[in-house]
Parts: sequence; structure tokens; C-alpha cells
Amino acid sequence: MSVVKVLEDDELAPEAKAVFDDIRATRGSDFVNNFWRVMAHDPALLKRIWETLKVTMAPGALDPLTKEMIYVAISATNGCEYCVRSHSAAARAKGMTEAQLMEVMAIVGMANQTNALAMASQVPVDDVFMTPKEP
Amino acid sequence: MSVVKVLEDDELAPEAKAVFDDIRATRGSDFVNNFWRVMAHDPALLKRIWETLKVTMAPGALDPLTKEMIYVAISATNGCEYCVRSHSAAARAKGMTEAQLMEVMAIVGMANQTNALAMASQVPVDDVFMTPKEP
Amino acid sequence: MSVVKVLEDDELAPEAKAVFDDIRATRGSDFVNNFWRVMAHDPALLKRIWETLKVTMAPGALDPLTKEMIYVAISATNGCEYCVRSHSAAARAKGMTEAQLMEVMAIVGMANQTNALAMASQVPVDDVFMTPKEP
Amino acid sequence: MSVVKVLEDDELAPEAKAVFDDIRATRGSDFVNNFWRVMAHDPALLKRIWETLKVTMAPGALDPLTKEMIYVAISATNGCEYCVRSHSAAARAKGMTEAQLMEVMAIVGMANQTNALAMASQVPVDDVFMTPKEP
Amino acid sequence: MSVVKVLEDDELAPEAKAVFDDIRATRGSDFVNNFWRVMAHDPALLKRIWETLKVTMAPGALDPLTKEMIYVAISATNGCEYCVRSHSAAARAKGMTEAQLMEVMAIVGMANQTNALAMASQVPVDDVFMTPKEP
Amino acid sequence: MSVVKVLEDDELAPEAKAVFDDIRATRGSDFVNNFWRVMAHDPALLKRIWETLKVTMAPGALDPLTKEMIYVAISATNGCEYCVRSHSAAARAKGMTEAQLMEVMAIVGMANQTNALAMASQVPVDDVFMTPKEP
Repeated sequence: MSVVKVLEDDELAPEAKAVFDDIRATRGSDFVNNFWRVMAHDPALLKRIWETLKVTMAPGALDPLTKEMIYVAISATNGCEYCVRSHSAAARAKGMTEAQLMEVMAIVGMANQTNALAMASQVPVDDVFMTPKEP
Repeated sequence: MSVVKVLEDDELAPEAKAVFDDIRATRGSDFVNNFWRVMAHDPALLKRIWETLKVTMAPGALDPLTKEMIYVAISATNGCEYCVRSHSAAARAKGMTEAQLMEVMAIVGMANQTNALAMASQVPVDDVFMTPKEP
Repeated sequence: MSVVKVLEDDELAPEAKAVFDDIRATRGSDFVNNFWRVMAHDPALLKRIWETLKVTMAPGALDPLTKEMIYVAISATNGCEYCVRSHSAAARAKGMTEAQLMEVMAIVGMANQTNALAMASQVPVDDVFMTPKEP
Repeated sequence: MSVVKVLEDDELAPEAKAVFDDIRATRGSDFVNNFWRVMAHDPALLKRIWETLKVTMAPGALDPLTKEMIYVAISATNGCEYCVRSHSAAARAKGMTEAQLMEVMAIVGMANQTNALAMASQVPVDDVFMTPKEP
Repeated sequence: MSVVKVLEDDELAPEAKAVFDDIRATRGSDFVNNFWRVMAHDPALLKRIWETLKVTMAPGALDPLTKEMIYVAISATNGCEYCVRSHSAAARAKGMTEAQLMEVMAIVGMANQTNALAMASQVPVDDVFMTPKEP
Repeated sequence: MSVVKVLEDDELAPEAKAVFDDIRATRGSDFVNNFWRVMAHDPALLKRIWETLKVTMAPGALDPLTKEMIYVAISATNGCEYCVRSHSAAARAKGMTEAQLMEVMAIVGMANQTNALAMASQVPVDDVFMTPKEP
């Protein structure tokens, strides 16, 4: 049970239904997962999140699979079970192999380890890392 | 100033010096950044971290640039300044463009947003996301 | 199952029972939730946490509902299921509407997004934000 | 120094300049803080973040000051210095008193304490907290 | 600069001054660090935090040095610079050797690594770990 | 169900089986918990994690029980259920009493509280905490 009810299709406001239509059309599938059914309590929020996600995860300077694997790594770091499971499934649907998943996991472990070590020691940033690139 | 002293080359134990030699040989550069100079207080820890990092970030099912961008995303999520700066620099050295960096940032923002929304609503995991792949 | 046993009323030390009496009197309800039944293993800890919580959440410069919504937002950010659920229930008991809950969620999503973006970019703090108010 | 350059007004792409114009008009001030000057490297991202923030923080079921204090509490929990400082300043500009700020701080401390205690003990959620409200 | 002013001794309310007197008497030192000078804006909060800390860190089932090292490890995990530095100093003052500090760091790195791996894989808890001890 | 299958003994690659043999020999028990059965999908990762953990948790400048309690405190802070439960069990197996566990919990609560307060107030680090010890 979620904190707010997971809405069924026949409980949606018209503005939420329109977003679900776009989710279905974009994904080419009738399935709409529970995350959206919770966001649908606030149709304007639902619309903002979905449209931003759609743009953010579209092909660009990075390909969609790389983007999904980055999403999985962040979700693991935050300990969000729903997000780890849903984005792992999405990454597999986009072609992630089990070998790639295990490498993502290894980086998740390693980065969280060295992040913690750097924060534990409060190591000063080297000058060479402080210069940003010009635009 | 870090919590333990950032060691200069002439303050290294022989076992730490050997690791620094490998860092220099692997990277083809004389520069050894402060993180390792702090870890060097415990040469066995230094050696374990370095050797694990070297294997984890080597080309495999994922290419080194993809791995660095995942590392940057995790470091941003953890708020580790040293790690964000050093791995952004490493990703640039491996060819990351500014457009790619901005897309990594957009995913970092988006994933942290939806992770928080999923945790705020405690949305139940859809059955379809619960079945693992066979080995 | 928790890491330590959830204590029943007849398993409480006298000092813990006295705290439970105060929880019941303060809330005007016989129900004492599991969190306190776990803390009760250390009656002095139970007493400190309860008395601090009681003072912190009492009406002051902020009203109790505002305080509960802030508590919910922090709990969501930390991914603490127990805390999200118990403080959402507490906020509803204090009058939080579903519209208010959805706005809290929207802020939780937004703040976690921009927090992550600020940490990803290591944006320098503007001078104007650095001056504290005088006492 | 941030990871990407903090852009001056004369370095902005036209789409970014249009967003800055809206920030200035909305706030009734010529000042645009560094966060937006970093986001401006990706004008589409800048526009999405700004427009979502503007809607999220507008008066609604919660008033703007309550929203800012929730933002401050989340930023403190995430340890984001930039966000703590900029949203504390924003909350003060919206009328937050020092007494209110100290109460926000007390809740930040308390919620992070009990969140950690609940996670340390893995206390089971009481049945009464598991039933969501009907839509 | 902190978000609220760091108070000097002559700016303290009488209730805050009384707490400072107890900090000085307990520690046998005239020095009062900045954390308390910030908390002093709310003398009741200052008093609660100090008295709870004093009890929590006193000798008990665990000795004070072990307690400080646990404190350092948590502070590192949260990335709190102030806390890492102040509690590392406190641990050293209680006798922590550099070898012990490096072992704390190694555990901080290792635990953050395996925590992240367990969250990334969502590994189910073994039955044997689910049975709490009797009271 | 985890994101990757929990492997049974007869599904292990030979390199993974060798690590399981060492886990069993080191612990003097036939039981191998699920964490390792998930890591076993990548035998090289399994081996690195196990060997590092074995060294990190061995008696050194700190005794194994102190190390486990630090591990529990970090796991609680990260909200990792698997890690809290497995390391609490490990700490009990090494002799942790319930009184010690409750003191660990009290520190977990206290440190997360003051960490959050220090980050909320952005209190400047006192000069006396900035000087590292000489090597």
C-alpha cells in the first residue's frame, strides 16, 4: 500500500488520463506502472514529471541504455527499491546484458566506497581539478 | 587540510611507493592526486583500493567513459565534492563532451527527483518488476 | 520483525511504562506505535527521545501541521518507510489535506532534484547568500 | 569554481536569455544567482528546471513560506551547502523569522535522529499506518 | 559564515550561558566550539542537544573512544565536514591512534560499498537474520 | 526476489565456488548468506569483495566486535535493511550485548541529529579542528 491510493484507470481525472495516453503511445504498451498511478493524484505534477522524464531519457549526446544505467546507479545509491527494480527492468528492455548490470553494480560499490573515504578524510581538492572548461 | 596529512613522495612507506609507481605507470603520468596521498597512510588499504579501482574501471562490458560518467553521477548524488571534481576531470580526459556532462547532470537531477517521489509515496513495486532474470 | 523485539505492555520496565503513560496522556489515545516499543529496550533513551519529540513538535513559531509536513519531507528524503508512513498519518490526523500532501511531495521531488544538480555542478555560493543575520 | 563555467549574461544562448528574463520578471529583481548561470549551459534543462520550480513554489494548498522552509529542511538533510544557503535566504525574504528558522533546525535534527533510529531497529510498520486514504 | 551568527560569549542569553558553563565544566576546558555557538540561538534546543550528547557519549556498555569512532564513521557517511573534523579531533583526544583511524576509514569505505551493493541488487534478507533476540 | 537471481551452490562457476569454500572455511560454517549468492554472478567481483571484507574485518588496531558495531551504525545511517540485519547478527555472534546494541542505536540517532544540525546551519569549522596530525 502506498501513502496515497494507486489509482485505477477509471479513477483518473481527464488531465491524468491524457498523460497516461501519452505514456502508452510513447512506450507502445498498454501497461502503466504504479509510480504514475500515484503521481496521478496531482495531474499537473504527473504531467510535469512525465514530460521531463521523456525528454531527459530520449536519445541525445548519450544513448538511452547508458542513461538507464546511470539511473540505476543513482537509485541504488539512494536505496530506492522501486527505482532500482523499475529502472533495472527498463535497462534490460533496452538491451542491458547481465554482464553490463554486474559492471554497473561494481561501479556502484566502488564509487560509494571512495566517496565515503574522501568524505572521511576530507582530502583537499587538487588544484588541477578546480579549473572548469570554457563554454 | 585533510583529517590525515597529505603525504609527499618522500614520506611514503615502500609498499605505498610501489602502489604510486603502478598508478603512474597505469596512467602514463607522474601526477598522483591527493586521494591516494591520504590513503597512503595505510599502504595495505591504498593497495586494495587502487587495485580494485583499476580493475573496476578497465574496459569490459562497459567502456571506460561510460563507467566514469556513472561514477560522476553517484558522486553527485552523495554530495562528495572531491569525487565530483576528480571524476568529472577523468571523464573529460576520456572524451566526455560538455553536452554529455549536461545530460549526466539532467539524469542526476531527474533520478534524485523520482527516487524521492517514490520514497515519499512508498509506491508498491509492480509485479512485473519483481521477476529476476535466470542466470 | 525488528532487530530488537517489539515490546508488549507487560514486558516494559517501570521507567518505560511511565513514558508510555505520558505518550498516552499527551495523545489522548491508548495506542502506542511500534517505534516506542522498540526504543523501550533502553528506558532512558526512550524517555529522551519522547520528551525531545514532544517539545520539538509542540506549537511554537510554527504550527504542528507545518512541523509534521517538514518531518514527512525529511523522512521521504532519507527513504525511511516507517517514518514516511507514521508521520504522513500524523499529518493527516492534524488536518493535512490530500492536496497539501501532493504539494509536499512535489517539493520533495523538486528539492532533491535541485540539491543533486547543485552538488553535481559544485556551483559556488553567491556572495549575497553568505551573510548571516545579526542576532 | 564550479564543474562548468558560471556564465555571464553576455555568454548566454538566446533560449537561456529568455529564461533569465522570466526569472527577473518573476522575482522583480535583476539579480540571477549562480545556480541558473550553471544550468544555462543546457538552455532546455534550464527552462525545465525553472518552470517546474516556479510552479512548485507558487501559492497553492501551502503558502510560499511553508514551501521554502520544507525546501530548507530537505537541503539540510542532503548536506547541500548551496541549497541550504540560497533557500534560507529565500525563506527570510518571504518573512521567515529567526525563531522559525531555529524550529526548522530542531525538526531537521529530530527527524534525522528518529529516521536513523527507525532504520537502525528496522521497526515494523504498524497496521494502522498502512491504509491509504481513498481518492 | 554560518546560516545564523556564531555567537560570542557576551551575546548569549542566560540560559545559553548556563549550558556553556556546563560544557566547560564537563570538558575541563574553556574552549567552546562553534557548533554550540550556533545552537545557542535557541537556548532550549542547545540545552536538549548538549544534555543528550553528554549522556549518549558517557561511559556505558561501550567506552567513550569506541563511541567517538562510531560517531566519526556516521559523520563520514553523511559527508558532514564539521562533524568529521570535530569528532576525529575528539577521538584523538580520547586516545585514538592513527592506525585506529585508518581502520575506521577502511570500514567506512567497505560498509558504504557493501551497503550500496545490497541496495543495488535488492538481495532478500536470509531467514536466519530475521529473528530478533528475546528481551 | 533480488534484481539478479540468488544462486544455489550447484549454479556457481568454479571461481565462485572457490570463494564460497573460503567463506565456509573462514567462518567455520556451511551457511553462505544471500549477499554472496548475488555477488557470485560476477566471480571476480565476488572474490574482490570477500577478500577485502575479510582483511578489513580481521583483528587489527580495532577488535572485530568494535568493527562490526561501526558497520551496523553505517548501515543504519544508509537505511540498508539487509546490511543492518546481517551485521547486527554478526555483531551478536561476536558477543555484542543488547545493552551495547542500544548504545550503538543511541549514537546512530545522536550523530544523525547533530550531522543534520551542522549541515542545516553550515557552521564554520573551528581552526583547532583543521590541523592534521603529523605522519
